[in-house]
Amino acid sequence: MGEKKKTVKKTVSVKKSEYMPEVSPAVIKRLPRYFRYLREVMRQGKTRVSSAELSKMMNVTASQIRQDLNCFGGFGQQGYGYNVNFLYTKICELLGVGCGFRALVIGAGNLGSALVRSSMFEKRGVDVVAMVDVRENIIGKNVGDVTVYKMDDLEKLCEEFRVDIVILTLPKENAVAAAQKLLNTNIKGIWNFTGKELDLGDSNIVVENEHIGDSLMTLCYEIARREEEL
Amino acid sequence: MGEKKKTVKKTVSVKKSEYMPEVSPAVIKRLPRYFRYLREVMRQGKTRVSSAELSKMMNVTASQIRQDLNCFGGFGQQGYGYNVNFLYTKICELLGVGCGFRALVIGAGNLGSALVRSSMFEKRGVDVVAMVDVRENIIGKNVGDVTVYKMDDLEKLCEEFRVDIVILTLPKENAVAAAQKLLNTNIKGIWNFTGKELDLGDSNIVVENEHIGDSLMTLCYEIARREEEL
Repeated sequence: MGEKKKTVKKTVSVKKSEYMPEVSPAVIKRLPRYFRYLREVMRQGKTRVSSAELSKMMNVTASQIRQDLNCFGGFGQQGYGYNVNFLYTKICELLGVGCGFRALVIGAGNLGSALVRSSMFEKRGVDVVAMVDVRENIIGKNVGDVTVYKMDDLEKLCEEFRVDIVILTLPKENAVAAAQKLLNTNIKGIWNFTGKELDLGDSNIVVENEHIGDSLMTLCYEIARREEEL
Repeated sequence: MGEKKKTVKKTVSVKKSEYMPEVSPAVIKRLPRYFRYLREVMRQGKTRVSSAELSKMMNVTASQIRQDLNCFGGFGQQGYGYNVNFLYTKICELLGVGCGFRALVIGAGNLGSALVRSSMFEKRGVDVVAMVDVRENIIGKNVGDVTVYKMDDLEKLCEEFRVDIVILTLPKENAVAAAQKLLNTNIKGIWNFTGKELDLGDSNIVVENEHIGDSLMTLCYEIARREEEL
């Protein structure tokens, strides 16, 4: 099977930094939000932005924003504000956006297909190179422009496509078996939608768990709280 | 169109609390995690759990756990630990789980279908009563056991089904128009997957934005950081 042609990234090209500054986990958690809002500011054609403007857009205090951005050298100038391109590039660099990570999706069901068809990967400089599934009738078909291969070939595919990130959208009960197979590969990260916690022992693979239902609960909480108030 | 038969909830039935204690937003954000882990503990048949055990499972310090649980009256006893049923019921109550909220999904594409077919709603005591879409060829069909109706009937459906929560999985560019329509209804919350920020003026509708891509960025960041270290 041929190597998929690597698509040209439209994201900002980022030079590898000479050092990675120490940024607290709480700030890291907020970086994707800064990334999204700065994209929005760039789309509006602005080249500079004040902490007050960001504060209004993001519903965070201006002092919090100044503190966060100072952490990674994004020092604003009085009366000028922040250089949008500098900030955006710096955040992309910190987040590894534009590193050209290559991803494989396990599970070509509704969730896997929704992810692959969204613009999320392209925006973030991640290239989805393949999908795998156990259902014989969809092997060889495409989801968007990504081909579905056999689950049995998972390890071989990870090697051939030089996969960095594997995205688990298969049923919960099959998550552990899939993770076991991945321990034999050179992948660097797992984005886990299965809801099953994975124990990868002393492996170097980074796991990020996505619990979509958590924000449904936050919503229910907020509704219940407001009803209580009335 | 007939009212969909309300399915019987398997979640813990929760009495409305007499008062809603003041819990900080940071603790609220962690409640869905406690909810998930306590479900796991209950599945293992345990009736009590220590802060040390929770600490190990959740990778949070035991002192943080004691502090969080004290916030809402979940006082553990030395040498006994926490009563799992009490904690779980309390968290369900705080989160509005079991309030029997009724949800309608806009968009019967891959993402909407993935959500409806998952067990996420049932687990959290939310009942999906209808979906709507603009594509004529799927109107009247079912996704799981939920029927797809015409998008044009959105406001009427919200009224007839007494919808509490609307879930937006339609394309970003149609999000604002949909939200405008929802301002004419009695819904209480919007769970927004479109990536478009919604400005609902002084409406009482609670909006919770879901940005699935954010945790992809956290993963990329962590991979880039580890490679930097090597």
